[in-house]
Amino acid sequence: MNRRKAVILLSGGLDSATVLAMAVRDGFEPYTLTFRYGQRHSVELRAAARIAEAFGSVRHVVTDIDLRAFGGSALTDDSIAVPHPEVPGDSDAGIPVTYVPARNTVFLSFALAWAETLDATDIFIGVNALDYSGYPDCRPEFIAAYQAMANLATRASVEGRQRLTIHTPLIALTKAETIRRGLELGVEYSMTHSCYDPVGEQACGTCESCRLRARGFAELGLSDPVSPPGR
Amino acid sequence: MNRRKAVILLSGGLDSATVLAMAVRDGFEPYTLTFRYGQRHSVELRAAARIAEAFGSVRHVVTDIDLRAFGGSALTDDSIAVPHPEVPGDSDAGIPVTYVPARNTVFLSFALAWAETLDATDIFIGVNALDYSGYPDCRPEFIAAYQAMANLATRASVEGRQRLTIHTPLIALTKAETIRRGLELGVEYSMTHSCYDPVGEQACGTCESCRLRARGFAELGLSDPVSPPGR
Repeated sequence: MNRRKAVILLSGGLDSATVLAMAVRDGFEPYTLTFRYGQRHSVELRAAARIAEAFGSVRHVVTDIDLRAFGGSALTDDSIAVPHPEVPGDSDAGIPVTYVPARNTVFLSFALAWAETLDATDIFIGVNALDYSGYPDCRPEFIAAYQAMANLATRASVEGRQRLTIHTPLIALTKAETIRRGLELGVEYSMTHSCYDPVGEQACGTCESCRLRARGFAELGLSDPVSPPGR
Repeated sequence: MNRRKAVILLSGGLDSATVLAMAVRDGFEPYTLTFRYGQRHSVELRAAARIAEAFGSVRHVVTDIDLRAFGGSALTDDSIAVPHPEVPGDSDAGIPVTYVPARNTVFLSFALAWAETLDATDIFIGVNALDYSGYPDCRPEFIAAYQAMANLATRASVEGRQRLTIHTPLIALTKAETIRRGLELGVEYSMTHSCYDPVGEQACGTCESCRLRARGFAELGLSDPVSPPGR
């Protein structure tokens, strides 16, 4: 059987691991793409490699991009502290300092470049419009506009060949729903890493990303396999 | 006087040097962005730095991106030869092998990231829809779609602040018109470098990019200051 190629953006976190499992379930041949972008949580990179292997990635590319050259986020600028909020996902508080300017735009653009050389017409990204705290580049209207642009950007678009689709299977799911579907598809969440502010390899348990994960597992009556001891 | 900041994509070639001169003429404070992307013609990088300095760039960033990881172009893949056509800009021949998949999409995405951290709302890019041989990401409809996407991608777009504009002052100019305007603005074209296939620091004179330049200067009754000896 000739499976269709897809480029999957894989961070090593819970969401993108679930997206990879969903793409494989849907019959796509996965090509996984991970970025080393000056993020503090480079432990994610090792997690991404393990997850890619577990789900049979045909090729796993780790590419370097220097978002530190621009700064502007707690994830790429050492002068901005990662917050440890009491309540995760408080959208009244505005866009949090963990937002990395234009990150998903940059990530999708590399995915588009690879999709074009692979002659693939499917890109998967684990954005979510519910649990996240108003990141502009996680909204459905952003993804729709990106797809429209991408369909004017490539050789295939000029030659009138098949159109490109950006798949966002998590966009309307709660974290608990994402986890439940991932568990059904065999995702080993102990392999994943989502913490914004890890101590060595260990998740902090108190940053927004850790809290969102923990709450998702708790809603299913489970505990997060990567929670720090004592939580 | 408080000048508005603008991010200028600067390759070191003739077109982007002219765009930088135009942005400065229009009163923008220039922040110049150049990519080291595995291109064969890294001599362009030195040209970009000279041009940035000549036009008073407030900050000149050279950022590394690895488009070689994906290949698919004569400019990023050593297994694909750079062509030396007799007639430049022959659009009947389809999209040339010098097209780099999604290159302008990737470049604009980094410019968007920087613009967002600078709180700039203007990006300049030297795309041209006339002289080029059908590169999909040089078309006005691509730029319009990119701008629409960018205006949904950023913090400013969520917060309802000023909209982002992608300026393409060369999009409808012939090469000769570009050169004439650049000369009026004091661009020293001897500083620029456009060759796809240089021998050391010397332009080859016969690739598509060299031929387009030479034709532009010839139409003005001039010779290209970076032509190889004897041409």
